[in-house]
Amino acid sequence: MKGIKIVTIGGGSSYTPELVEGLIKRYETLPVRELWLVDIPKGKEKLEIVGALARRMVEKAGVPMEIHLTCDRREALKDADFVTTQIRVGFLAARAKDERIPLKYGVIGQETNGPGGLFKALRTIPVILDICRDIEQLCPNAWLINFSNPAGLITEAVLRYSPIRKAVGLCNLPIGMRMNVARLLEVNADRIHIDFAGLNHMVFGLNIYLDGKEVTDRVLDLIASGEAGDTVKNIPDFQWEQDFIKALGILPCPYHRYYYQTKQMLDEQLKDYKRNVTRAEVVQQLEKELFELYRDPHLNIKPPQLEKRGGAYYSDAACSLIDSIYNDKKDIQTVNVRNNGAISGIPADSAVEINCVITKDGPRPISVGELPVPVQGLVQQIKSFERTAAEAAVTGDYHKALLAMAINPLVPSDAAAKQMLDEMLEAHKGYLPQFKGLQSANASY
Amino acid sequence: MKGIKIVTIGGGSSYTPELVEGLIKRYETLPVRELWLVDIPKGKEKLEIVGALARRMVEKAGVPMEIHLTCDRREALKDADFVTTQIRVGFLAARAKDERIPLKYGVIGQETNGPGGLFKALRTIPVILDICRDIEQLCPNAWLINFSNPAGLITEAVLRYSPIRKAVGLCNLPIGMRMNVARLLEVNADRIHIDFAGLNHMVFGLNIYLDGKEVTDRVLDLIASGEAGDTVKNIPDFQWEQDFIKALGILPCPYHRYYYQTKQMLDEQLKDYKRNVTRAEVVQQLEKELFELYRDPHLNIKPPQLEKRGGAYYSDAACSLIDSIYNDKKDIQTVNVRNNGAISGIPADSAVEINCVITKDGPRPISVGELPVPVQGLVQQIKSFERTAAEAAVTGDYHKALLAMAINPLVPSDAAAKQMLDEMLEAHKGYLPQFKGLQSANASY
Amino acid sequence: MKGIKIVTIGGGSSYTPELVEGLIKRYETLPVRELWLVDIPKGKEKLEIVGALARRMVEKAGVPMEIHLTCDRREALKDADFVTTQIRVGFLAARAKDERIPLKYGVIGQETNGPGGLFKALRTIPVILDICRDIEQLCPNAWLINFSNPAGLITEAVLRYSPIRKAVGLCNLPIGMRMNVARLLEVNADRIHIDFAGLNHMVFGLNIYLDGKEVTDRVLDLIASGEAGDTVKNIPDFQWEQDFIKALGILPCPYHRYYYQTKQMLDEQLKDYKRNVTRAEVVQQLEKELFELYRDPHLNIKPPQLEKRGGAYYSDAACSLIDSIYNDKKDIQTVNVRNNGAISGIPADSAVEINCVITKDGPRPISVGELPVPVQGLVQQIKSFERTAAEAAVTGDYHKALLAMAINPLVPSDAAAKQMLDEMLEAHKGYLPQFKGLQSANASY
Amino acid sequence: MKGIKIVTIGGGSSYTPELVEGLIKRYETLPVRELWLVDIPKGKEKLEIVGALARRMVEKAGVPMEIHLTCDRREALKDADFVTTQIRVGFLAARAKDERIPLKYGVIGQETNGPGGLFKALRTIPVILDICRDIEQLCPNAWLINFSNPAGLITEAVLRYSPIRKAVGLCNLPIGMRMNVARLLEVNADRIHIDFAGLNHMVFGLNIYLDGKEVTDRVLDLIASGEAGDTVKNIPDFQWEQDFIKALGILPCPYHRYYYQTKQMLDEQLKDYKRNVTRAEVVQQLEKELFELYRDPHLNIKPPQLEKRGGAYYSDAACSLIDSIYNDKKDIQTVNVRNNGAISGIPADSAVEINCVITKDGPRPISVGELPVPVQGLVQQIKSFERTAAEAAVTGDYHKALLAMAINPLVPSDAAAKQMLDEMLEAHKGYLPQFKGLQSANASY
Ligand SMILES: [Mn+2]
Ligand SMILES: [Mn+2]
Ligand SMILES: [Mn+2]
Ligand SMILES: [Mn+2]
Repeated sequence: MKGIKIVTIGGGSSYTPELVEGLIKRYETLPVRELWLVDIPKGKEKLEIVGALARRMVEKAGVPMEIHLTCDRREALKDADFVTTQIRVGFLAARAKDERIPLKYGVIGQETNGPGGLFKALRTIPVILDICRDIEQLCPNAWLINFSNPAGLITEAVLRYSPIRKAVGLCNLPIGMRMNVARLLEVNADRIHIDFAGLNHMVFGLNIYLDGKEVTDRVLDLIASGEAGDTVKNIPDFQWEQDFIKALGILPCPYHRYYYQTKQMLDEQLKDYKRNVTRAEVVQQLEKELFELYRDPHLNIKPPQLEKRGGAYYSDAACSLIDSIYNDKKDIQTVNVRNNGAISGIPADSAVEINCVITKDGPRPISVGELPVPVQGLVQQIKSFERTAAEAAVTGDYHKALLAMAINPLVPSDAAAKQMLDEMLEAHKGYLPQFKGLQSANASY
Repeated sequence: MKGIKIVTIGGGSSYTPELVEGLIKRYETLPVRELWLVDIPKGKEKLEIVGALARRMVEKAGVPMEIHLTCDRREALKDADFVTTQIRVGFLAARAKDERIPLKYGVIGQETNGPGGLFKALRTIPVILDICRDIEQLCPNAWLINFSNPAGLITEAVLRYSPIRKAVGLCNLPIGMRMNVARLLEVNADRIHIDFAGLNHMVFGLNIYLDGKEVTDRVLDLIASGEAGDTVKNIPDFQWEQDFIKALGILPCPYHRYYYQTKQMLDEQLKDYKRNVTRAEVVQQLEKELFELYRDPHLNIKPPQLEKRGGAYYSDAACSLIDSIYNDKKDIQTVNVRNNGAISGIPADSAVEINCVITKDGPRPISVGELPVPVQGLVQQIKSFERTAAEAAVTGDYHKALLAMAINPLVPSDAAAKQMLDEMLEAHKGYLPQFKGLQSANASY
Repeated sequence: MKGIKIVTIGGGSSYTPELVEGLIKRYETLPVRELWLVDIPKGKEKLEIVGALARRMVEKAGVPMEIHLTCDRREALKDADFVTTQIRVGFLAARAKDERIPLKYGVIGQETNGPGGLFKALRTIPVILDICRDIEQLCPNAWLINFSNPAGLITEAVLRYSPIRKAVGLCNLPIGMRMNVARLLEVNADRIHIDFAGLNHMVFGLNIYLDGKEVTDRVLDLIASGEAGDTVKNIPDFQWEQDFIKALGILPCPYHRYYYQTKQMLDEQLKDYKRNVTRAEVVQQLEKELFELYRDPHLNIKPPQLEKRGGAYYSDAACSLIDSIYNDKKDIQTVNVRNNGAISGIPADSAVEINCVITKDGPRPISVGELPVPVQGLVQQIKSFERTAAEAAVTGDYHKALLAMAINPLVPSDAAAKQMLDEMLEAHKGYLPQFKGLQSANASY
Repeated sequence: MKGIKIVTIGGGSSYTPELVEGLIKRYETLPVRELWLVDIPKGKEKLEIVGALARRMVEKAGVPMEIHLTCDRREALKDADFVTTQIRVGFLAARAKDERIPLKYGVIGQETNGPGGLFKALRTIPVILDICRDIEQLCPNAWLINFSNPAGLITEAVLRYSPIRKAVGLCNLPIGMRMNVARLLEVNADRIHIDFAGLNHMVFGLNIYLDGKEVTDRVLDLIASGEAGDTVKNIPDFQWEQDFIKALGILPCPYHRYYYQTKQMLDEQLKDYKRNVTRAEVVQQLEKELFELYRDPHLNIKPPQLEKRGGAYYSDAACSLIDSIYNDKKDIQTVNVRNNGAISGIPADSAVEINCVITKDGPRPISVGELPVPVQGLVQQIKSFERTAAEAAVTGDYHKALLAMAINPLVPSDAAAKQMLDEMLEAHKGYLPQFKGLQSANASY
């Protein structure tokens, strides 16, 4: 290829400047000739604001990267080399419902692996599978790099229900966990290596190394003694029970609090709920402020305020991945891919989040064998949920959706599952065409 | 063998008359020459009451079966053909603690697969492993048939930590479920066949047949429409959410309510807790009444009141199993054995509860392949719990015990896990010698 | 069903009288109303001879079983309950080629798992898959019971490439091995039970029981000491190396001689080859004699000469299987079915030959876990061969066929594989329509 | 560590100068402070010749690496960082027997995975396991890097029967195959990447990349068209059947000729056998000449004649591996390690030869999932052989050794297996103390 063509679907996102910055920074080794930002008509205004900023950034940096803006996805995809997807079907308003409706029933919404995540998946998977069909026709050699959430569940759906094999799911959590360990040890992050394995937002650091020497216990002791939070922006950092963290013996991710500290997390969320605040609403306000900034015709760099947004490292992770694929770097990155036996007990054809060697031929997972026995069960439970949810998203089968809801570890009863499901199907019905027939059938139950 | 020798450890149990009745009934094909009832000195009075009744029953029936009573386990085991274990370490008082302490923390006790079951396992497994060592020395060809709870977890421990291979765990739930299906369909139970697979108290009926023809959906429809409870004595039969039961597509066991109807079950138990009643206390009263009856020197049959006790079919299941092994019957029974690949995804060397062909060489599991995806996760989670709990029971490792507690699906937080664990370790300390050192170490945390 | 309808494809076979005898014998519990004998026009004469004999047998027995003769397979299949297939595409003339062409290259032909078996599979699988398509349309609830060879490979193809799930492959070897063990121990065969597991014509007796007590070593000692042959009609019974049979520790089947005594078997076959005699030719002569007998209008029973034919117990096995399915007998029979985890290391969706419980819902395999390490490799090698051969049969891919030939353990080189393949493709071309295009392509290599 | 300590057992080997050269070349990043060359008293003369040369090489290069020579292995091992083993129990004379005795019976000896390899394993494994025990006591943090043959089988034995987990088996074949592909494509070898997976001397190149782009078919076409041999010194490069190599679709290793071209290889070896020449004898002559050169006090570099010896890249592979472990390089190398799920179907705890990321914590295998179906069988067969042979080597069990011999794919009959085994046990008896008792028992058979 002479010059790379990247297509970013959901290009009007507030994250885009980070992506543009990442590509500019790497231009020498990763010569992107064309960056296509694609969005839906409803997002056209944002697309143009972000696109204009992107052009100013490119100009300032003096790199010959063309920025194309379009609402015609198929036009954009033609002969692309890489396609990134960062879409939010139903906008932040839908996320607010994903979080608030469950809380009404005393249940954590959890927009990725919880009841909220189920609905985000039901809305998002059909769109992603449409994109996959377009890719197959228009740019069959392209790599699809998805960072729409729930990234693991979406990767599962792509692997099982699309013909695309060059697909990777991306999350910033592993990078964030590494950064956090570096902070704890007061060293530079590039001296830290962590053996990551698990599922998206359910990933564990099995071993932690400083300069190649294992320091897992030292890090866990620091965490046990409460010296530092290990959290992401949107998850409160309750102190872990110190004996629990030592007993666990491996590094949990921030989202594990939902499962190992369910009660505290729920109480916290119910407080916010009663004050009428959810993460979605906080984010909506942040977004508004960001776009105000982006409009400024004098702004020609990524504004530092973006870091607060919570998605730090996401686009950087994407640029890194593209760089390593394009340049056959064979470095190690943590991504969501076909398991292929790397984690025992998870089906070979299911998605896992795991350390991979990144080659021109894509990521190759590094085998970890069995996860520690005490965490196998929870990981399997989320995998059961993901597989059932993916099937529901593709088939629009009411009963599959109900099962996915009821088996989710955050959902405390079959009755609550049914009530939440029905209310959420109704609330999101504009974005769930696949459930149309069934919902009315369901109405007559 | 000329005449069979059976040793029943925990022979002073109120269940023993059912066992004796079962042996008498089968005497022609299963000629038991000696039945040894063994108990600990503290249980001697009950042993003698039950033993005297057993002798009257045998005499009445006119079968030449010798009843031996002893507190010397090793004397009894010499050259035994079958050893049954129905022990309750710490008596019903311990069970009451297993149930009540968790409720204090707003957590279901659940005396088999919950926090209560964890402690029952910690108390019972060392005793069972002692018995295994005795069997190895004194009657290495004997079959060990355990129906002490938690029967699945104990089988797991025996398979992993004892040299005994001729070991089977037994539960009356599958028989009860079959009876219940027969009631629902208004047919005789012997026309019903169910493909059972899962774990103890976590077993599913994958397919249900009437006269060999599948009627699974018909049965699930009946259950969904609330026509009949499918419950055991000690579990309230809340109505299943009808769409859930249809979506599940397989028959759950009564204990599944703890996981799929957690909220309702907890609310119900908290009500009892506040009224100061737990199942343990109900049972204690029933036991007292039963022993009053057993004392009656005119009683020479199993009194019908025993059926109320909740353990119906237990001893019958044991007699059936012994009969089929002894007579190489090759019929199908549902028992807890080494998985051996029969359920995909569960380790080959772990215990499962599954339909087996019963031969003179023991039970052979019938392969079912993969469980339905939506239930795999929960089954794996209980298996993680069982394996971790078994390791804690054998090693007396405080951290393993904490992990077992914290990963149990009924336990809502690491903090609650730690508090319950500490209080329960203290409450049961007389029966947990393996934790002695560690507990004091723990005190200084 | 009121009265059973059985369709026998290849009904003009000399084996049919055994099948008819078996059905008559079981009439009381297995009331067959209609037996349809189907054959191709070229086999019409034999069909009529055999059909007339069948009618005389039924009349003599006084059972109201209708015998229908037809060359219209689809007419026959309508609403069938059981379909048995015993076809020989290309007749015995093709078998002679299967055996003789390899010998020309110094290679054993072996008409089931060897180069000869590869060609038998290439000819037979497309026909069987056609039958499967007819079954799907005309009698979707019917059971397909195939005893055409290579029965394992054909079952593999049916499981992977047809929509039919109610399919069983049948071989008389396990019954024969049991009979032989009974002879060795001088006891009645019904006192012997053997745990069979492996692949078709690659099955092992893992444990042998007399009245439920293990006697494996005793039987192997008898075999080691050469007291008796354990062979089938068509395999010479060279003495096993006594230390080898003890070291093996499990009972091999007669066909194992091809792999563990390759040299002796080859030498023997080369002798016959030079004398211009192969098994196919011996069988051709036997067949001719049998049909002479069958023509006799006074014959109204199965003639005893049929036993010599080599297929003893085949039809009996089929009748037994049909009986147990129809009557939900839950007895144990050894058949070829989907593995489903019963043998570790073989794919769950591959065919294995294994002890099953026979229910109305079909055979359920009994788990054996891992085969002994030393035999795993050979079993896997034959499974690799079977899977590759099945793919070649379905796709008509020349390279797949070459691979199947070259990886067969009897084939000593890539060059010999290619030569045999080309000569056999030519020799059988009339029966290999799926290879048509490719063969001419190949000609230009 | 301040300066690295390497211990080379079998240090008197003619390969040692290559190792010394490799360490000198890498001194800057791999500062070896002490290199201990260890040999047995019988090899003392060679040890001193090689040791003197090593000292002259170090001096000429001007690096401060101490060369220690000793016959006291335990003295050497104290606090070692890396231990390499390149031993030949029984010297080249034993190898000659390994090769010649089987040929007497018309069987290929094959000194690694054949009957000869079995005996090399029986002689070598007990010595390696002794070394492991010493390592455990004297330098428990050291890495054991074995390149004694059969390297895969020895790794299997170390993983299963020693407490050492930091153990890697090394072969020069993957490097050689990469070099050869580079030659075929006329490019520099560092532009070629191959996905290797399989077992030692049974490894396949699954995909071949040039500058990150797949060129597998192009390479196979070149090989099919006979443009170049892909062979090692000791294996004749018969032309592969071109359709076979295309059908295979992956790159075989030179040793695959033994299995896919058995006939040609045997004929070739029988020719040599009749001329009284085997590879062992060729090597003996080469060795003699090399040691003549090494004696020369003016020689202070690795003499170019060593390249002819056949072990090219071996020591280089070892230096590379040590370098990457020491410096946590995270590059990809092909080594023999615990499978850990990387190749589906091979036990997680068995040795495989596979691409690994080399970290300070050792090699981590990159998952490949399933091998292509047609090669699975052969790989499994060699794994069966390796596991059985390893067990025989450790237990000294005659029957296990017989089984290992009989199931080897090069051995054509149980009778030949027994004869070869008995003759070879006798021929090597001085080096097989573990078989002592059994052999005499065997004598009385
Ligand atoms: Mn994420
Ligand atoms: Mn129970
Ligand atoms: Mn057969
Ligand atoms: Mn090698």
